[in-house]
Amino acid sequence: MAWQQAAAVCRAAGEPLTIEQIVVDPPRAYEIRIKIICTSLCHTDVAFWSGKIKVTAAFPRILGHEAYGVVESVGEHVEGFVPGDTVVPTFLGQCDRCSSCASEQNNMCAAVPFVVGPGMRRDGTTRFRDGEGNPVHDLVAVSSFSEYTVVDVNQVVKLDPAVPPKLACLLSCGAGTGVGAAWKLAKVEPGSSVVIFGLGSVGLAVIGELAGGGADYSFECIGLSSVMTDAFRCIKQGKGKTIILGTEQNSEPVCLPSIELLFGKCVMGSLFGGIKPKIDIPILAQKCMNKELELEGLITHEIGLQDINKAFDLLLQGKSLRCVIWMDKCKQQSSSWLNL
Amino acid sequence: MAWQQAAAVCRAAGEPLTIEQIVVDPPRAYEIRIKIICTSLCHTDVAFWSGKIKVTAAFPRILGHEAYGVVESVGEHVEGFVPGDTVVPTFLGQCDRCSSCASEQNNMCAAVPFVVGPGMRRDGTTRFRDGEGNPVHDLVAVSSFSEYTVVDVNQVVKLDPAVPPKLACLLSCGAGTGVGAAWKLAKVEPGSSVVIFGLGSVGLAVIGELAGGGADYSFECIGLSSVMTDAFRCIKQGKGKTIILGTEQNSEPVCLPSIELLFGKCVMGSLFGGIKPKIDIPILAQKCMNKELELEGLITHEIGLQDINKAFDLLLQGKSLRCVIWMDKCKQQSSSWLNL
Repeated sequence: MAWQQAAAVCRAAGEPLTIEQIVVDPPRAYEIRIKIICTSLCHTDVAFWSGKIKVTAAFPRILGHEAYGVVESVGEHVEGFVPGDTVVPTFLGQCDRCSSCASEQNNMCAAVPFVVGPGMRRDGTTRFRDGEGNPVHDLVAVSSFSEYTVVDVNQVVKLDPAVPPKLACLLSCGAGTGVGAAWKLAKVEPGSSVVIFGLGSVGLAVIGELAGGGADYSFECIGLSSVMTDAFRCIKQGKGKTIILGTEQNSEPVCLPSIELLFGKCVMGSLFGGIKPKIDIPILAQKCMNKELELEGLITHEIGLQDINKAFDLLLQGKSLRCVIWMDKCKQQSSSWLNL
Repeated sequence: MAWQQAAAVCRAAGEPLTIEQIVVDPPRAYEIRIKIICTSLCHTDVAFWSGKIKVTAAFPRILGHEAYGVVESVGEHVEGFVPGDTVVPTFLGQCDRCSSCASEQNNMCAAVPFVVGPGMRRDGTTRFRDGEGNPVHDLVAVSSFSEYTVVDVNQVVKLDPAVPPKLACLLSCGAGTGVGAAWKLAKVEPGSSVVIFGLGSVGLAVIGELAGGGADYSFECIGLSSVMTDAFRCIKQGKGKTIILGTEQNSEPVCLPSIELLFGKCVMGSLFGGIKPKIDIPILAQKCMNKELELEGLITHEIGLQDINKAFDLLLQGKSLRCVIWMDKCKQQSSSWLNL
């Protein structure tokens, strides 16, 4: 059965989203329909919204890819999920059978590979239609700014229902990427000096100052090739590592002084910080529950779906880190919102 | 006592070397004077000879840095070496006390650091003077195209006298770098696909073809930024590694598509393939003696010091891999030369 439900639709690049009643098709084979409980706004959503990522500009579109929800129904051949399971959808899939999934170092599933452009991963089609029956594009086959969405089974991670929804939501992209980059990719050792590019120039100058002889690790979280070069230049000869996490906003190449590479520097990047979603998100969620990993401080705002354009304003103005958007209308009207 | 001995001197960029009688000063504190038994010509010697590396152009100069020899005398405070020890000098030092030497991943000794320019590492001076008493510059504080040379104790590795001299010589730079890059730096796993850039375009096309979906590892051994970019583009998403071993011949930066970094690629470089000379060269030498590592095939020519310009011609014409140059005059006149 197709469902008519509310979603925030981006009709054109850079324009405010509109809350519309849309039709969400039933899950096809290997797909799961999820009732979204909460979602949050990530810079990647803003990059797609702005239309800057021209190669994949596609409108109308339902953005959103950091989310937490409950399985509503499952398509044919879906194993291991039943309605009511608490889950997070993820932009990266994991089939657990291909050579990439079998490798400890590789999180780029080759069986149902990640693509930047719209379309479900197995057939390239969308599960969304607007009030007039016209197709609405998805974002990275997740599209969580919607009360319901359909996601490939490879892109769904089951979580213990005890995990707080908004923390689970953050783990499904942003926080997972950051923690994963330090843990899985850079393998940062205790006592190492670390520079994070994405703090603004003042913070940067202070931290650059602290790491004599260069930092052991630097992380680029902005997505500007000039900052990537700076991040590379600030690391130590002999063993410094630069981790690229930002998507270059203008599709520029990153240029590095080759002699510095030769003097023992390393640059690497990854989607999702090297995380394998189905293995690592549950581990991180457990760390959150044990208070080994504190993500609450990243949530600066909480709003309802109808106010989603405020989340964009706050992020664009640099006033928020993560704004959690609740689908539940009661929640939207509660007085528990932060900072609004 | 200063020694008057033969050396091949490069008087000006790109000109044939001249065999001259030079004075080799005694070793100062922390230095060792070595009687060179054999040396070999590396592309790096040719790069310095050509004058292309302008920032360090310094003439007259004694080139050469791959070598094997015997300790002739030691300066004050030298411990662990006595005259008669069989050794290889290395362009990278290892003090075994600084934080870099203490780290398993870092071979850039911080106590007596590597510098590209001429001069002994502790005081910047030279130990060579020509027949008229004028100073002659060194190359990377090794200068092995000379019957005798003086090298910092940190840059001397003692070897079992049973190691064949010409194999030991190759391990002191070129072969050590190549093997080290696969072993210490890339940590290539059995069954991996590997592309080596430095084989010419035909070989490259064939090997590119063999590695479906990209290679697990690529090595750039030429020193051209465009080839470095190609080496990066040919590796696998998710876990591919590119190892830069060539010194960029025109000091150009290397430019990489940033989105490919983000899709899980890695670029790293090192001097000496990540080898820690005093630990790793003896290990590799033992592997040579056990026939686990076969380097004989790299030696295409053997000549005497007076014919050193032939070694340059052969390398420039692409006719040799490694030409070993013997200091011993009897050897020079023997009929055992290969391919000449």
